[in-house]
Amino acid sequence: MEFTIQQIAEVLGGTVEGDATQPISSLAKIEEAQTGSLTFLSNTKYESFLYETGASAVIVGRTLELRQAIGPALIRVDDPYSAFSRLLEFYAQATRTGKRGVEQPSYIGETSEIGPGHYRGAFSYIGEHCKLGENVLIFPHAYVGDRVTIGTGTIVHAGAKIYPDTVIGQFCVIKAGAVIGSDGFGFAPQPDGSYKAIPQIGHVVLEDYVSIGANTTVDCATLGSTRVGQGSKIDNLVQLAHNVEIGRHTVVAAQTGISGSSKVGDHCVLAGQVGLAGHLSLANRTTVTAQAGVGKSVKQEGQILQGSTAFDFKQNQRAQIVFRRLPELEQRVERLEKAQNATEKP
Amino acid sequence: MEFTIQQIAEVLGGTVEGDATQPISSLAKIEEAQTGSLTFLSNTKYESFLYETGASAVIVGRTLELRQAIGPALIRVDDPYSAFSRLLEFYAQATRTGKRGVEQPSYIGETSEIGPGHYRGAFSYIGEHCKLGENVLIFPHAYVGDRVTIGTGTIVHAGAKIYPDTVIGQFCVIKAGAVIGSDGFGFAPQPDGSYKAIPQIGHVVLEDYVSIGANTTVDCATLGSTRVGQGSKIDNLVQLAHNVEIGRHTVVAAQTGISGSSKVGDHCVLAGQVGLAGHLSLANRTTVTAQAGVGKSVKQEGQILQGSTAFDFKQNQRAQIVFRRLPELEQRVERLEKAQNATEKP
Amino acid sequence: MEFTIQQIAEVLGGTVEGDATQPISSLAKIEEAQTGSLTFLSNTKYESFLYETGASAVIVGRTLELRQAIGPALIRVDDPYSAFSRLLEFYAQATRTGKRGVEQPSYIGETSEIGPGHYRGAFSYIGEHCKLGENVLIFPHAYVGDRVTIGTGTIVHAGAKIYPDTVIGQFCVIKAGAVIGSDGFGFAPQPDGSYKAIPQIGHVVLEDYVSIGANTTVDCATLGSTRVGQGSKIDNLVQLAHNVEIGRHTVVAAQTGISGSSKVGDHCVLAGQVGLAGHLSLANRTTVTAQAGVGKSVKQEGQILQGSTAFDFKQNQRAQIVFRRLPELEQRVERLEKAQNATEKP
Repeated sequence: MEFTIQQIAEVLGGTVEGDATQPISSLAKIEEAQTGSLTFLSNTKYESFLYETGASAVIVGRTLELRQAIGPALIRVDDPYSAFSRLLEFYAQATRTGKRGVEQPSYIGETSEIGPGHYRGAFSYIGEHCKLGENVLIFPHAYVGDRVTIGTGTIVHAGAKIYPDTVIGQFCVIKAGAVIGSDGFGFAPQPDGSYKAIPQIGHVVLEDYVSIGANTTVDCATLGSTRVGQGSKIDNLVQLAHNVEIGRHTVVAAQTGISGSSKVGDHCVLAGQVGLAGHLSLANRTTVTAQAGVGKSVKQEGQILQGSTAFDFKQNQRAQIVFRRLPELEQRVERLEKAQNATEKP
Repeated sequence: MEFTIQQIAEVLGGTVEGDATQPISSLAKIEEAQTGSLTFLSNTKYESFLYETGASAVIVGRTLELRQAIGPALIRVDDPYSAFSRLLEFYAQATRTGKRGVEQPSYIGETSEIGPGHYRGAFSYIGEHCKLGENVLIFPHAYVGDRVTIGTGTIVHAGAKIYPDTVIGQFCVIKAGAVIGSDGFGFAPQPDGSYKAIPQIGHVVLEDYVSIGANTTVDCATLGSTRVGQGSKIDNLVQLAHNVEIGRHTVVAAQTGISGSSKVGDHCVLAGQVGLAGHLSLANRTTVTAQAGVGKSVKQEGQILQGSTAFDFKQNQRAQIVFRRLPELEQRVERLEKAQNATEKP
Repeated sequence: MEFTIQQIAEVLGGTVEGDATQPISSLAKIEEAQTGSLTFLSNTKYESFLYETGASAVIVGRTLELRQAIGPALIRVDDPYSAFSRLLEFYAQATRTGKRGVEQPSYIGETSEIGPGHYRGAFSYIGEHCKLGENVLIFPHAYVGDRVTIGTGTIVHAGAKIYPDTVIGQFCVIKAGAVIGSDGFGFAPQPDGSYKAIPQIGHVVLEDYVSIGANTTVDCATLGSTRVGQGSKIDNLVQLAHNVEIGRHTVVAAQTGISGSSKVGDHCVLAGQVGLAGHLSLANRTTVTAQAGVGKSVKQEGQILQGSTAFDFKQNQRAQIVFRRLPELEQRVERLEKAQNATEKP
């Protein structure tokens, strides 16, 4: 995609100083920008970059006064940062999610429906009895099993797998390689020491505005629903086991694992590589720091947990500091004992 | 799928009270059941739910006496729980694994064989010189490389990748996105500080009744076999490195990683996010708790390990409890030292 | 693939003792070798295996003197180990990466170019405006988005997903199911407690000789590049977040996660299940042991870190040892306090 500086200035309602006919093909940070790219200067603390940047054009404030001659053209606007943000969104939209129409070969069951404005990439698969809304984008190699429902504007990225009976809301993003609705890990031990699979006939519900990370796995419920609440964002390589329930506007960072039937409240933040045991619940606004292992429920809102096994963040911090001094602490105890022995013996 | 209450009662050998002609389209928990769903009441402790449930029908014991009028129809059987379990299995079978036949386009090498009763989904790929048994189900986007053997009744889910030369037994389940037989992580450091890949020419063997979780990775052996023993169940996002050997009927929970050449015995349980170093072995019936990191071999059977680095579970529990009190412990030592100084100084 | 012992001896410049016409179809360890397989004896410490092996042929040194009659044929060479290594590489090349040509159906955008000697597997997808070099292998179900560049000799394995605008160097290996360039996990909190996705318009750069493991995820940069330096090797199920930079010849083991904008130097080693917080940097030749959690930058080269949270390896080892004795340590302090009380009270 290529635009002239003039075209971009018009979109932003800005005025150009310099050669407005130069082509722009990418957006960049001011310190990394090269010929053909557009950048911005918002905080005048970084004004020196303006005189060094390799960018073809820089978005600046209307009132900025130059201290020396510069190479790039300028686009002057009221608020450079928000102007640049609008361009970012437009660019992301245009390049990443601007696909429409149907590439062949692709597969869709005869009994399935899909709304107008959709994209179905080559080698995408949609089973039978599916209902997909308007502007749904199904990228190449995505798999959508039978009886799946997907709301308006949701994007299913390349190679994501949506199992039968999954219900996905509007404006969700399912990133590449994610697996939604695979059988939960439920096995009944048999008298001979072997295991027998417990049928998993529930499904997964993702409410509106949910984001699921690349190669993340969300298991279906044994019965009922595994659920991610409205607006919650799940990062890459996360494991949500059967019957897990995540509240609204909760954030779960990469490689975290939540065991079967556990419930996480609204507005929680789980950092990376956190583990939650099964059948517990976290109150709203709970924060769990990276690599923590939570073994029991948290009832009071707003707690911060740390450590494996996890407890109060500040208390854990203090214990961690003493942990580093443990060898010295042991020696101090030893010295006290020797002194005591010396006192007692004589 | 829809059945009438009458049809289901006949399958279960039960008798109907109420309107037997109503349609049933799903199974549900008694407290979540809605119109069109069937549930069960096994434990009379929960009898109150019977009078509140929105289900269209409830499976109950033959001898249950109603305390008040109810909405749903009843199907009376000898053992409600096992009747419901049978329905669950039947339902899971019918909806999840009931696929048969070939969808197009799909790819199979001319030199490969596949037994009767199979399913090959659209965009599934089977290379050359493969031997697949009866009733093998290959879902859309699954990749089966050259010279792979797969036994009777095994299911390869959507987008699973089976590398060349893999040997898979009967009645295994390979879940969506799993990668079986990718090159092991073996690199020889060179004099200039770079790394050179060590050729990985071994393969993976999955014995009968093995389950491999979604997006789990099992690397091929450098030479010989990476092996998962009969009946062992591996959860999602697990990493089994080159030349790992898992015994029979062992359970490995999500996000656990086992390093190269390590051996895990029979009937072991590794909880979630466990790590095992390389070249060690765990005796039969070893249990490792969540997030533990095992750094050396376990020779005695039946041990339980906890912590990173891991040691005996109970000992670790006790140390964890004192860990929380470390700041106080340090203060107590400080007070003792002051007291001692006071004693000595005068 | 089958060769006679004579053919293999000629390739290796070796001389045969025994029946040179026997077919060889696999390579194996001497203690596991069976009929049809070739093995080697390098270290004479293991000479006893020579008289027990089931191999059809064994590569041995020219000067080895037999102590008894043996079954397998011998191929005598100057250096058995390096001769066998050459065979391993040849075999790996021939069986795993020997694919050439185009299988159908496969998809390539009209505006994309691919050099001679390539392989495009069935159901592989290449978007528009891509430039792929000579001998590039794209396995089945691999997805290559628009405007991707891939250098000579790079292999993209089954079901790997390469997002638009990714730049991949020469002789890289992208293993099955890896996701390169998915949107970073960046969300701006809104006044109402919800989150809004921050547009991610950067990309990923993999320099020459990089290896990316199965089901590993590498997020694109918010702006600019997420980068893996020349020769670095990333294992399976690793998470590299947006704007991460990995130096040259650095090794990252399985299930490790590196948070946004962190920089890892050259010749570093991160063991399995390690976590790095965001916005920090590790000096060249830093080593981080398994399951460690690094919370702050490391400026001095050559450090070894351990623990969660991580600090100096040796110091951590010593603290770990005292940790196991914490219950006893607490009791010792208790005894000291009692003794002191006894002294004070009277």
